[in-house]
Amino acid sequence: MYHNKRSAVSTVPNEDPIRVGFIGLSFSKGWALKTHRPAILQLSSQFVITAVYDEDEKMAIDTIERLKLVHAKPFTDLESFSTFENVDMIVVSVQASQQYEIVMPLLEFSRRNSNLKYLFIEWAFASNLQQAEKVYQAAAIRGLQTIIALQGRKSPYIQRAKELIHENNIGEINSIEISCNACWYGYERSRKVANGMFEMGNGLDLVTTTFGHTIDLLQYITESYFSKINALIFNNIPEQMLVDDLGNPMGRTSPKTVPDHLLFHGCLQRGNVPVSCTIKGDKPTKKFTKNFIIDIHGTRGDIKIEGDAGFAEMSNLVLYYSGIRVNDIPIASDNGHPVQPSLDQGKEFMEVYHLRNYDAVHGNVFRLYQSIADFHFNTKNIPNLPSQFVMQGFEFEGFPTLMDGLIIRRLIDSVYRSNSMGATLDVTHILQFPSSV
Amino acid sequence: MYHNKRSAVSTVPNEDPIRVGFIGLSFSKGWALKTHRPAILQLSSQFVITAVYDEDEKMAIDTIERLKLVHAKPFTDLESFSTFENVDMIVVSVQASQQYEIVMPLLEFSRRNSNLKYLFIEWAFASNLQQAEKVYQAAAIRGLQTIIALQGRKSPYIQRAKELIHENNIGEINSIEISCNACWYGYERSRKVANGMFEMGNGLDLVTTTFGHTIDLLQYITESYFSKINALIFNNIPEQMLVDDLGNPMGRTSPKTVPDHLLFHGCLQRGNVPVSCTIKGDKPTKKFTKNFIIDIHGTRGDIKIEGDAGFAEMSNLVLYYSGIRVNDIPIASDNGHPVQPSLDQGKEFMEVYHLRNYDAVHGNVFRLYQSIADFHFNTKNIPNLPSQFVMQGFEFEGFPTLMDGLIIRRLIDSVYRSNSMGATLDVTHILQFPSSV
Repeated sequence: MYHNKRSAVSTVPNEDPIRVGFIGLSFSKGWALKTHRPAILQLSSQFVITAVYDEDEKMAIDTIERLKLVHAKPFTDLESFSTFENVDMIVVSVQASQQYEIVMPLLEFSRRNSNLKYLFIEWAFASNLQQAEKVYQAAAIRGLQTIIALQGRKSPYIQRAKELIHENNIGEINSIEISCNACWYGYERSRKVANGMFEMGNGLDLVTTTFGHTIDLLQYITESYFSKINALIFNNIPEQMLVDDLGNPMGRTSPKTVPDHLLFHGCLQRGNVPVSCTIKGDKPTKKFTKNFIIDIHGTRGDIKIEGDAGFAEMSNLVLYYSGIRVNDIPIASDNGHPVQPSLDQGKEFMEVYHLRNYDAVHGNVFRLYQSIADFHFNTKNIPNLPSQFVMQGFEFEGFPTLMDGLIIRRLIDSVYRSNSMGATLDVTHILQFPSSV
Repeated sequence: MYHNKRSAVSTVPNEDPIRVGFIGLSFSKGWALKTHRPAILQLSSQFVITAVYDEDEKMAIDTIERLKLVHAKPFTDLESFSTFENVDMIVVSVQASQQYEIVMPLLEFSRRNSNLKYLFIEWAFASNLQQAEKVYQAAAIRGLQTIIALQGRKSPYIQRAKELIHENNIGEINSIEISCNACWYGYERSRKVANGMFEMGNGLDLVTTTFGHTIDLLQYITESYFSKINALIFNNIPEQMLVDDLGNPMGRTSPKTVPDHLLFHGCLQRGNVPVSCTIKGDKPTKKFTKNFIIDIHGTRGDIKIEGDAGFAEMSNLVLYYSGIRVNDIPIASDNGHPVQPSLDQGKEFMEVYHLRNYDAVHGNVFRLYQSIADFHFNTKNIPNLPSQFVMQGFEFEGFPTLMDGLIIRRLIDSVYRSNSMGATLDVTHILQFPSSV
């Protein structure tokens, strides 16, 4: 059996909260403000922001003042920030395309900072696989405990699906179908969205973002990586129509070099399970299907996870389960005699799991921070808890690390290569740790 | 505009009905008895059975007597049957694995039969592609008008979907997802089903049957063939559990060499449309999805075709349409001025198309016979109707021929090769007519 899967953090003030240094937090806008900041506010006994880095000094000072970060010191110089000893964890919440140029020198400078223990990097983990491999290796050599923002793993729906399967409630998985709608990459582009999102190489394409998050969740739920894969990638909409804030066409188009459709299929190592996954980039015009669907079929039951938005890591979902639960089958008691089967034995159960007011955008990031605190403070009193771990893998406990992220980065790279080579690829090698570490 | 898509056959007795010679019709059982016989009975002004071939003379005579085929003569010798002049059409309704050895000599013998015009062959068109190519060429050299039983093309749901798309009611197609459940190929096997169904090479595997029919319908609806494809084929259930007539396990297993799962994806030539298609072989345990789904997404609407059974060619379906109809957009009138747009312009329409009592097993075969009669008698008075055509292609009128069947046979062959080669294949060549004809 596992440890209690719920976080055990308390609201009792903590003498030594985790001191956080932020890159990418701004009082005015951005993902860090929207999600990291509320998570830390809610976990004020576990985390305190002690440093804010911004090249623009006024911005750093304003952010500290406006967000009332009374314990924080502003930095405009990456070296001073990286060596600032009053920091346990550095959060790099900038776009994927800027991560490499910040994190590599940061890791080098931070060698002189013996207090620094954690490095938290936003998905998509650099612009491409080559950068991600280098960042992974540099962080491993530096000896930091890393965290990657594949926060969908903390979604209660993903956890519940994983639990149902792990506890054998659908039997052996024999088939999986996934379908997502990635709304950004369609015929229209809001003038508010930066062009970089639609240029290849920035790590913001639908394979890297929508597929990356989704396939990480699928592997996490099923507790298996892929053995072989094939992909076809389409850019059928090379020009997008610009629309204004009300959605009205502005009479101009803008080029798009990122894909608008991914067809992916492959099989899982465990059980040789066929998996089909399609990602459609367009406004959710699908009238008769949901914009996010994972269908998992097993020998004794099925799980369906559905959502109105195509992004499982940040949208609210519904989980449907139907199957014959294994705990209705008699289990040997302590004296070796089988326990009497319950009256429900062999009957089919149905479960609809939905948290009506769950705010997934905040909730999943919040739960990721909770799991960092659970680890740091060992709030669950796990005996012999190691001081560091390389990857979360398929554990319920813990949090995804750069190694977990690297596996997805390598899968994404294989997806692009499969498409360009026109080949079905063996991807078992993507689990290998970098040879030089 | 098209000719009226409905059949124009009448019930007025016809002086010269199409004289049909049957191979595979038996009074006691079989697909011909179940579907061809009722179709011909309903179309008694258009068709009359004049010959029945069976190696077993008693069976031939009994079939004629028991089915009251008063105009029919029994044959036990293929040569005499093939040269019998009182026949316009020969129907070969035997299993795929027996078709080649019957049809090849039949075609040779029939050179001496100047009355024979039509050859109707059951899907799956021989055991494999090589045989199908030979049969196609032999029939072409013989100069017969061929018919292949891809009768799903005649399904009213398929016709309606094709019509909605053809008349531009969903705009440009940009994405297609197909999911079918092929119940036979799962964990359990009824002892009533012959072993041959589960042995590779008989043309009865789920790629050749379920996928073959379904992908033919998809191409027919969208009016496009594929440009490239990739497939992964699984046989994860190499032993099936035998069950009795009540579905109870008999304590024995039987080997299965045919696949139980197909993952297919590719893109259509027209519009480079991404298509995903998964065929799962197992009892329909999917609780939260239908056993047959085609989702077609377009720029201005969507079509969903659903069914409870995974076989579109012989199960009743439901069609859902939502979109902006093109006939609500102003059209130039005769004098060149635009007609006033209707009040419905730009509004979204919804259609649920379902014939509650439609019997698809009989209905689609019946409609196929209707279309043969429509052609033979030119019941629609189409001017300059050719006396023969090589293929139906994507026409509403007519019926699928061996060339249409050969294209599907070649696609199926490419599916198997894609899987074994681990390659994404260009399949544009499958449209080429055999070079020797």
